[in-house]
Amino acid sequence: MFFHVKELQYRAKPNKPDPVYAKKLQEVLGGQFGEISVMMQYLFQGWNCRAEQKYRDMLLDIGTEEIAHVEMLATMIAQLLDKAPVEEQEEAAKDPIIASAMGGMNPQHAIVNGLGASPNDSTGYPWNARYTIASGNLLADFRANLNAESQGRLQVVRLYEMTDDYGVRDMLSFLIARDTMHQNQWQAAIAELEEKEGIVVPSTFNREYEKSDVSHTFMNCSEGKESEAGRWASGPSMDGKGQFTYEEHPVATGQAPELNPAPGYIHGTPPVK
Amino acid sequence: MFFHVKELQYRAKPNKPDPVYAKKLQEVLGGQFGEISVMMQYLFQGWNCRAEQKYRDMLLDIGTEEIAHVEMLATMIAQLLDKAPVEEQEEAAKDPIIASAMGGMNPQHAIVNGLGASPNDSTGYPWNARYTIASGNLLADFRANLNAESQGRLQVVRLYEMTDDYGVRDMLSFLIARDTMHQNQWQAAIAELEEKEGIVVPSTFNREYEKSDVSHTFMNCSEGKESEAGRWASGPSMDGKGQFTYEEHPVATGQAPELNPAPGYIHGTPPVK
Amino acid sequence: MFFHVKELQYRAKPNKPDPVYAKKLQEVLGGQFGEISVMMQYLFQGWNCRAEQKYRDMLLDIGTEEIAHVEMLATMIAQLLDKAPVEEQEEAAKDPIIASAMGGMNPQHAIVNGLGASPNDSTGYPWNARYTIASGNLLADFRANLNAESQGRLQVVRLYEMTDDYGVRDMLSFLIARDTMHQNQWQAAIAELEEKEGIVVPSTFNREYEKSDVSHTFMNCSEGKESEAGRWASGPSMDGKGQFTYEEHPVATGQAPELNPAPGYIHGTPPVK
Amino acid sequence: MFFHVKELQYRAKPNKPDPVYAKKLQEVLGGQFGEISVMMQYLFQGWNCRAEQKYRDMLLDIGTEEIAHVEMLATMIAQLLDKAPVEEQEEAAKDPIIASAMGGMNPQHAIVNGLGASPNDSTGYPWNARYTIASGNLLADFRANLNAESQGRLQVVRLYEMTDDYGVRDMLSFLIARDTMHQNQWQAAIAELEEKEGIVVPSTFNREYEKSDVSHTFMNCSEGKESEAGRWASGPSMDGKGQFTYEEHPVATGQAPELNPAPGYIHGTPPVK
Amino acid sequence: MFFHVKELQYRAKPNKPDPVYAKKLQEVLGGQFGEISVMMQYLFQGWNCRAEQKYRDMLLDIGTEEIAHVEMLATMIAQLLDKAPVEEQEEAAKDPIIASAMGGMNPQHAIVNGLGASPNDSTGYPWNARYTIASGNLLADFRANLNAESQGRLQVVRLYEMTDDYGVRDMLSFLIARDTMHQNQWQAAIAELEEKEGIVVPSTFNREYEKSDVSHTFMNCSEGKESEAGRWASGPSMDGKGQFTYEEHPVATGQAPELNPAPGYIHGTPPVK
Amino acid sequence: MFFHVKELQYRAKPNKPDPVYAKKLQEVLGGQFGEISVMMQYLFQGWNCRAEQKYRDMLLDIGTEEIAHVEMLATMIAQLLDKAPVEEQEEAAKDPIIASAMGGMNPQHAIVNGLGASPNDSTGYPWNARYTIASGNLLADFRANLNAESQGRLQVVRLYEMTDDYGVRDMLSFLIARDTMHQNQWQAAIAELEEKEGIVVPSTFNREYEKSDVSHTFMNCSEGKESEAGRWASGPSMDGKGQFTYEEHPVATGQAPELNPAPGYIHGTPPVK
Repeated sequence: MFFHVKELQYRAKPNKPDPVYAKKLQEVLGGQFGEISVMMQYLFQGWNCRAEQKYRDMLLDIGTEEIAHVEMLATMIAQLLDKAPVEEQEEAAKDPIIASAMGGMNPQHAIVNGLGASPNDSTGYPWNARYTIASGNLLADFRANLNAESQGRLQVVRLYEMTDDYGVRDMLSFLIARDTMHQNQWQAAIAELEEKEGIVVPSTFNREYEKSDVSHTFMNCSEGKESEAGRWASGPSMDGKGQFTYEEHPVATGQAPELNPAPGYIHGTPPVK
Repeated sequence: MFFHVKELQYRAKPNKPDPVYAKKLQEVLGGQFGEISVMMQYLFQGWNCRAEQKYRDMLLDIGTEEIAHVEMLATMIAQLLDKAPVEEQEEAAKDPIIASAMGGMNPQHAIVNGLGASPNDSTGYPWNARYTIASGNLLADFRANLNAESQGRLQVVRLYEMTDDYGVRDMLSFLIARDTMHQNQWQAAIAELEEKEGIVVPSTFNREYEKSDVSHTFMNCSEGKESEAGRWASGPSMDGKGQFTYEEHPVATGQAPELNPAPGYIHGTPPVK
Repeated sequence: MFFHVKELQYRAKPNKPDPVYAKKLQEVLGGQFGEISVMMQYLFQGWNCRAEQKYRDMLLDIGTEEIAHVEMLATMIAQLLDKAPVEEQEEAAKDPIIASAMGGMNPQHAIVNGLGASPNDSTGYPWNARYTIASGNLLADFRANLNAESQGRLQVVRLYEMTDDYGVRDMLSFLIARDTMHQNQWQAAIAELEEKEGIVVPSTFNREYEKSDVSHTFMNCSEGKESEAGRWASGPSMDGKGQFTYEEHPVATGQAPELNPAPGYIHGTPPVK
Repeated sequence: MFFHVKELQYRAKPNKPDPVYAKKLQEVLGGQFGEISVMMQYLFQGWNCRAEQKYRDMLLDIGTEEIAHVEMLATMIAQLLDKAPVEEQEEAAKDPIIASAMGGMNPQHAIVNGLGASPNDSTGYPWNARYTIASGNLLADFRANLNAESQGRLQVVRLYEMTDDYGVRDMLSFLIARDTMHQNQWQAAIAELEEKEGIVVPSTFNREYEKSDVSHTFMNCSEGKESEAGRWASGPSMDGKGQFTYEEHPVATGQAPELNPAPGYIHGTPPVK
Repeated sequence: MFFHVKELQYRAKPNKPDPVYAKKLQEVLGGQFGEISVMMQYLFQGWNCRAEQKYRDMLLDIGTEEIAHVEMLATMIAQLLDKAPVEEQEEAAKDPIIASAMGGMNPQHAIVNGLGASPNDSTGYPWNARYTIASGNLLADFRANLNAESQGRLQVVRLYEMTDDYGVRDMLSFLIARDTMHQNQWQAAIAELEEKEGIVVPSTFNREYEKSDVSHTFMNCSEGKESEAGRWASGPSMDGKGQFTYEEHPVATGQAPELNPAPGYIHGTPPVK
Repeated sequence: MFFHVKELQYRAKPNKPDPVYAKKLQEVLGGQFGEISVMMQYLFQGWNCRAEQKYRDMLLDIGTEEIAHVEMLATMIAQLLDKAPVEEQEEAAKDPIIASAMGGMNPQHAIVNGLGASPNDSTGYPWNARYTIASGNLLADFRANLNAESQGRLQVVRLYEMTDDYGVRDMLSFLIARDTMHQNQWQAAIAELEEKEGIVVPSTFNREYEKSDVSHTFMNCSEGKESEAGRWASGPSMDGKGQFTYEEHPVATGQAPELNPAPGYIHGTPPVK
């Protein structure tokens, strides 16, 4: 069960409204790597967790914190939209700054949300649940989480560069710091699990059943050998089970497919008589 | 530019048709972590690559290989659908095996695709481009890739457990091995970049501008202290810049928000007089 | 079956083109509460109607009228797009009014629709059928309809404020009046049904089977007691079956969940030995 | 900011697993009127609230409670999926009960989520943010909320009828009771606002600017006059501003539209010479 | 403006209910090539039509007819769902025919729609407006229409094969006949336009501005020369402007791309020093 | 299997960056009729092809070529985004050209993609697999392909008109020429199949089973007889099986539907006693 306190986790007050920036800031609220995504992802991973309690607890800790981040961003966006100009186009267009604000803001912020935040990204595309990753395998999922915090911190940093509003930057500097922690956290959790399980997910599949002759081979399917220069093309493999090799000219070994004609009730292309 | 050869990268022939399994196998073709996703992800990362040529080349190598995996899966699914029974319900329902096949298959495989594969997942939901991650920051993106290969191998392994068709398992054992390699590959590439940049993405943001007092703090937002037992709650942080600390009772430090009333032209809730 | 007459239900002629406004006006054509939504919602409620004929007939009356509203808006948008400037950016950008029009219009209006309306909302997001509500329970659905007409009238009013084009405002004033009627209509229909069934939907579920000790309790899950001031926190409940009570400190009464480990074939996180 | 306690708001334990029912139960977790929808809807309405504090507080109270409902449902679904049979089709199909379970469950529950809940509906379609209604006008939004609780209670009641598992029914009987309260709550809040504002949303638009001659007219666009029997066709209008009238033969009063040809750079259909 | 008559365009009565078939039949109601698609496509093409009145009129004729087809299918589906069994799983599973019906029907038909039709396809995926094609160029759009009627008739024919219910087949035989007419109709309309404009869309683009040396060349990008056997590889081109040629070994003539590094504020991969 | 060469099929270099145009150009990369659509469509049609090898080979030829078009567009877009200005709004707004660029570009190009292309359309809406048509009936699918190339060429031509950048126009002139060829190609392939099968798809359905009395009748559902002027209203039908007739006053011949009440467990509207 959950409880709410009135105060935000950290202050979220812009110096002044900026409806065009409000549109952009939606990305880290309702985008693929916005706060709604990590909130839902950590909560569902926690609720579905069939492993040790320390993982479940940790996931619900961070999932609950992320609800607070969603709250901060929504509050910030509503304030950035304060008194957004939405009057008729012609008059406003005479002042290029207002015109630019009117042309550049998300029209739904006014028409649909009445100057409030929405759970959409910076193009107005709605958040959806296919962004949520919860596989039941924690090592796989913690990699998803590390990625989410990496993409997320990158996007917040880019948004930091796009404004010089002191209040906005203040809040973003808090979110950036939390993303730093969360990248550290998932690295630590991954290290714990990799030490026990090894690095290949899932660790419980019997490696004898895979075609192990191609388990450590880099295939050069694009002309040119620049890719041979990387760590992935030679030396011991990262899982300690073999040596990386570089196949300069990969060869197709499967069949040239021929499919049977469809049965009559499918009404496909009639066969040649 | 691209060229095609007729033979599949590896053989893809089921022992016998199985339209219900065809529906399930769609997950690793057109699902969030299916082959279309990695194909598009690696190709777009390659085409957008503004870094060293060895990365671009490597991305296009693996992206091109993934098109071949899409081809193998599509070919396999079309064969699993051979002669799928789609006649009238009543008669068929008397044979429970056929009835189960008819009830369990994706109706679009017959009605829409005429016994062919489609770029959808195992619930029939269409692949979409929000699955594609290409941020322009390779360390972030390689973490996305490592996650994709982890989720992908996990799903293929689960599908391996769901059939005992020798031909299907043979093909899956190849895909599982390639996923092993690709997890190794992204681990290697990540190691290279982390050595140069450190582990926090993006590495180029000046750490002085983040609220560094919360950059290494775990916040216990869920009652109970099981989460204190993890590596993420104490000891040196993974980025080598501090010590993990555990905040048992996190406190809200922001304002209790109050928003201004909306301007009249928004027609929000009228203010109390 | 349906028949069409050439004339619009009401005139739809702008004074002059305005492609940026055309983009905004799309919201009430193809948005969540646009005319396509109510058209589809009323028609499907009518076609699925298993209740008295007067409801079916009324639903098809209003559903058919809404097709005419879709027609008026599409016609208006096409005219607002007349001769929209889409030439090269650099030259046009010298005239800020044209530049603003070019930057602010929906590019698909030119590229995809050739200066025609489309069934999308003001961000270009396509109308989709999850907006359509038809549950088979008319009291539930009439509440959905009342909401749709409330959100719809609100959006049209906001759009009225965003233009001073006489022709556009003339058409909108007609749509606003119809939304006034339709709010009245659903209020009347709801009153009829509530008188027969009571206010709780569905009325046919035996109230003895619900945990009636929490059927009239407000739970204060957010710190602070401002919410105690409302009508919902004390006095007789609206359904006449009890008294509203205010639970200042709600308590969790369920279990602290622990899930079983997954079976081996799921390849979840391996259990601790 | 938010805090979590380990115990569920109410117990959520099925008597025994039932993976097919787990699929159906997803509807009220991740469907249009599932708990995620009301959670997001109330939280966003609260965060965006520009009206009296008692409304903001009340919205955050109920929004926070709904997170707990999401948690209960996710926990229940994970337990219903315990040991779901996912082995090969042929063997299992010999036991019709297992076969039915395998054919009827959502394949993603096994392949993607490893026997965990997901934020999708009963067809596997992902929850998306277009389900969230937050307009900035509380009377409009409370109508949306009343509808959501009506549709929601109706769906939970239907799901109650579809199982005889005592544990599942126990949990549902709690959710049904809360939906009873929440319908009462929104009725009460609506009554408060309607008393102040009147029943037509938005109340602040000057009624002189609407075409008031059609503000209380029912238009009979579908042949037959059954619709004349309803309260909406005669008597004083619900808003107290007029009399309902019934227009038996509505007439089109607008123009028969003719559009100008497109400019040459649009490359539409060439005009007839 | 539109008017409705109570009678269906053609009778739509099944011999008996069949909820599994109801799910499948949704494909031609709410799928990509279902009746909602053609209804919306023809209406929007008509409303946006800037060409001769005979085309606008014809489009609105057929668009209006399609609303009647949507009505017939919705009515049929509601009847196929009559008394669909949705009780608890265990008891029903003992009767394999009922079990199959319960497992194979769309759960939303009961939970969400109360045994009514919905605007979704046979997998439960909602109809969306990206299915609607209206480009402003009638020759292009009539080709879209011919395709829609071809895919549509194909799907209806497949559904005809999947049932032996006399009433369903009777209605489908009407829809198949109308699709025959509509394929004929679009063929006729295309012939008219091609005679005036030629076959390449759009006809108004100056052919001198295209790289005409590749305007009639077939490029053999897939190994093997089977494709040389087709009409497209030799002989006069269909547009009468050249000869088809077959390029056995197509060559890449563009640059090997190298992109500039991103500016610092993008925080991409740091350049090698 | 597939192989990649470094060089593009044709050169793709803009004269100078133009981030607003980059946004528009996304339409023909990731829109409904963009290059990703035809790439996926032709590849899936090829992989699913159960007809003669010359069709499979031809489909894989053109599908493989389309991957190269995707590559060219992605490369062009990345270059158009070079050094896109994304700094703070206020300063930039003083220069109207920069302001226009900043307001008009897709914010995700900077925030999400770090100045790279993405698989989305010009409104930022993601490409999705419902755009892919592969029915198993080649005549139906070749009509889909002809439509795709018609809509595609039309959109590219419109984009050609929207820029005067020599480099962009150079690349587009190549794509336009290929679309010319591809329209010719599908015309040729269609002619081949129609000669064998006739023009009505599918040709294998026994025409005796359709209601042939309406197979060649045009129904005038929209008032006014302008539509009688077309080729589709009189003369021999295009399939050579009858005469077009014009039904001036079409009549509804079906029943006026009445549905049974829902069973009690559905909790629909209670029947009138």
